[in-house]
Amino acid sequence: MYSKEVAAYLKEKKIGTGDALRVDYNGISIEGTLMPKTDVGNPDTLIIKLKNGYNIGVQFSNVKITKLSEGLVTPGLFPDSGLKQDPSLPKVSLIFTGGTIGSKIDYKTGAVEESKLTPGELLHTVPELSKIAKITIKNPFSMPSQDIAYVQWQTMAKTIEQEIAAGARGIVLTMGTDTMAYTSAALSFMLQGLNAPVVITGSQRSPDRGSSDAFMNLICAAQFAARSDIAEVGICMHSSSSDEECFFLRGTKARKMHTSRRDAFRPMNDTPIAYATQDGKIRYIGQYNKVSGKGPKMELKTKFDSKVALVKVYPGSDPKIIGYYLGKGVKGIILEGTGLGNTPVSTPEKERGWLDDIKEAVKKGVIVAMASQTLYGRVNPDVYTDLRLVSGAGVVYCEDMLPETAYVKLGWLLGNYSAEKAKELLNKNIVGEINQRTGFDEFLV
Amino acid sequence: MYSKEVAAYLKEKKIGTGDALRVDYNGISIEGTLMPKTDVGNPDTLIIKLKNGYNIGVQFSNVKITKLSEGLVTPGLFPDSGLKQDPSLPKVSLIFTGGTIGSKIDYKTGAVEESKLTPGELLHTVPELSKIAKITIKNPFSMPSQDIAYVQWQTMAKTIEQEIAAGARGIVLTMGTDTMAYTSAALSFMLQGLNAPVVITGSQRSPDRGSSDAFMNLICAAQFAARSDIAEVGICMHSSSSDEECFFLRGTKARKMHTSRRDAFRPMNDTPIAYATQDGKIRYIGQYNKVSGKGPKMELKTKFDSKVALVKVYPGSDPKIIGYYLGKGVKGIILEGTGLGNTPVSTPEKERGWLDDIKEAVKKGVIVAMASQTLYGRVNPDVYTDLRLVSGAGVVYCEDMLPETAYVKLGWLLGNYSAEKAKELLNKNIVGEINQRTGFDEFLV
Repeated sequence: MYSKEVAAYLKEKKIGTGDALRVDYNGISIEGTLMPKTDVGNPDTLIIKLKNGYNIGVQFSNVKITKLSEGLVTPGLFPDSGLKQDPSLPKVSLIFTGGTIGSKIDYKTGAVEESKLTPGELLHTVPELSKIAKITIKNPFSMPSQDIAYVQWQTMAKTIEQEIAAGARGIVLTMGTDTMAYTSAALSFMLQGLNAPVVITGSQRSPDRGSSDAFMNLICAAQFAARSDIAEVGICMHSSSSDEECFFLRGTKARKMHTSRRDAFRPMNDTPIAYATQDGKIRYIGQYNKVSGKGPKMELKTKFDSKVALVKVYPGSDPKIIGYYLGKGVKGIILEGTGLGNTPVSTPEKERGWLDDIKEAVKKGVIVAMASQTLYGRVNPDVYTDLRLVSGAGVVYCEDMLPETAYVKLGWLLGNYSAEKAKELLNKNIVGEINQRTGFDEFLV
Repeated sequence: MYSKEVAAYLKEKKIGTGDALRVDYNGISIEGTLMPKTDVGNPDTLIIKLKNGYNIGVQFSNVKITKLSEGLVTPGLFPDSGLKQDPSLPKVSLIFTGGTIGSKIDYKTGAVEESKLTPGELLHTVPELSKIAKITIKNPFSMPSQDIAYVQWQTMAKTIEQEIAAGARGIVLTMGTDTMAYTSAALSFMLQGLNAPVVITGSQRSPDRGSSDAFMNLICAAQFAARSDIAEVGICMHSSSSDEECFFLRGTKARKMHTSRRDAFRPMNDTPIAYATQDGKIRYIGQYNKVSGKGPKMELKTKFDSKVALVKVYPGSDPKIIGYYLGKGVKGIILEGTGLGNTPVSTPEKERGWLDDIKEAVKKGVIVAMASQTLYGRVNPDVYTDLRLVSGAGVVYCEDMLPETAYVKLGWLLGNYSAEKAKELLNKNIVGEINQRTGFDEFLV
């Protein structure tokens, strides 16, 4: 909070957060943007963001303040602006759920706090959107993506269905990137019979940084939603580290492969479906479900059985972890095995072999399935003798499915089908999560 | 076993396993290689491997057999051949421990059974090796790599030390590829003060397949061992899908990234150290420890505390898994978090937040550390407010270390140092496992 003196001065001069100011003090003149005042810190200090991105605090008593212009450039600091919308443009629904793309600097810690930007603020800062589509905004919740799980996926799916039912031609859903690929897989399964583009996007760098990918990702996502004929759930993020194009990755075949790069999301055992530029040039590359005039009837299948686990296998890993999960009532386990789908089988130290514990789980009716920690490639139980022992124990081999996608699929299958049917469908393709053949060039793309 | 009649015939005609034969029957003539006879199957059947790689069984009673030549081309089927060694060549020790590179077809199941090829057989089939180095062969054990853990790493490290002490200029260690990267990390830590190239190699396709990478990998590994000045543990495998070059990847910065491709092993947050051709042209690319004339004194540090766990965090993951491991007496846990190093923190469903369980472990003196499931990039606890909560709970952030390397390092540290010292050293570079800066081009290489 500002002191009474400072607050009164700012009010009188009609200076508000986000305005561009010149501040003169001690013979120095600086220009920058007035940042929001928090409830901690010296009440007589103004926080100014310089053009180089750094913030400095200046003591009010020592300075001369000149207002240069109304705030327009710093995102995340503005109230809703009444955008003039063009009703002739395609209707696109923007669903905001939080994440870096909606982040503000947290002045308590200096770190970025997610999920505080309101939809109207973001739209104000990305006026390009109003030229691409007639925008509707929903904000069913705001959460950092690491906290998101199946309950939020269900809310997202229902919101998407409502927006499509209300006439949206396409959907843009923004969220944090940490669990974006898990989410895109979940929505791919939940939105059966989808006949519209559902484009998930976010940003790796917060919108107040010059290098932010937020604006381009959002604009390209809106282009896909407004103009593409892709009737699938996908992720739209930077295809390369440059600002040339974003791509649309199949929701079940994408993964965050880097902690911080703007092009962190990659297609896994798949090609990108399409690329888009900010001005709306769309290049189609891969096979995909097309939006069709009549189209299938959307069938929302949001049930999810959370009694599933993803278990990584590694040298020295403890197979009794299976027993732990059995004790928790888990109905399905995805093993993230080594190589073609291995677990330790005939170790000299008997307690490290996984075969008995796997058999025990299968005997109890638990679905045990195999994906590979190599991430790229296809598991195959037929190559090595020991692998035949693992598959012989009743383990379902999940072809070229990502471990994370297999985990999400298993929870979804168990929520919507009998255990028997779930086991049968697990390694059969439903929404593009399994490719019958993996192309030779679909490695490290 | 063959029937008496067949066995007598083969003995009389001096036909043995591996010989090239022509077989005429029913007006058809085929050429191929006689494969070994197993104790199952019809005793009157000969198994012939055709040139296209397929095996067929033919009934002895119906055929006319002509021996074309002594077996020379099918690897894995020969007795030791007395190789003439050139004593003027650099001394290289080959340590065989099993894996696909030493595999034979298992005729019981049709699958590849690992680890049955004897060293002498392999050397017979790769005569090039005798022109690169004066070879010594050790075979401390033969195991498929998925069964290998710290006990085998200790045996490998001790064997390597003995071979270097006995005058080896460099080491080639062959093994299965599934846990090769875990093993290369472990040996990197165990062989402190290493002053010789230790080159781990293997193959993705078994030596009896035309497309096998076994021979080139072994030859290039021998070149690195005999000629390079790299005083590090590394992995030597195909750098691309062509047979042009192999590369030498730092042992702590490599990962198997594909189930089946020959170029499955990739450098992670690092450049390759060097490339080699089969004829011994070595190109150095990265920074590395050089073999030095005086050299450091090798200090074997093979202790390993197996009370460590690697835990993957994902939407809906169960934080009580930490309590499970605490109950098992685990002293250190590597979390494979999302993005920059996240766990669920403030979930609406309280039982899914990880913070309390992490704090509990830290309070009990357990080391809890963070690496990212994105694999590429660097964890960073300073960017987001929630991340500061995780690091504030006492979690050690492991920079750009791979989760698998961090797991191996933690077990090694706890085996050789106090818990306090282990925690201090975990995110400090020791043998190249942490780069201070990650180069921009070290992504998806």
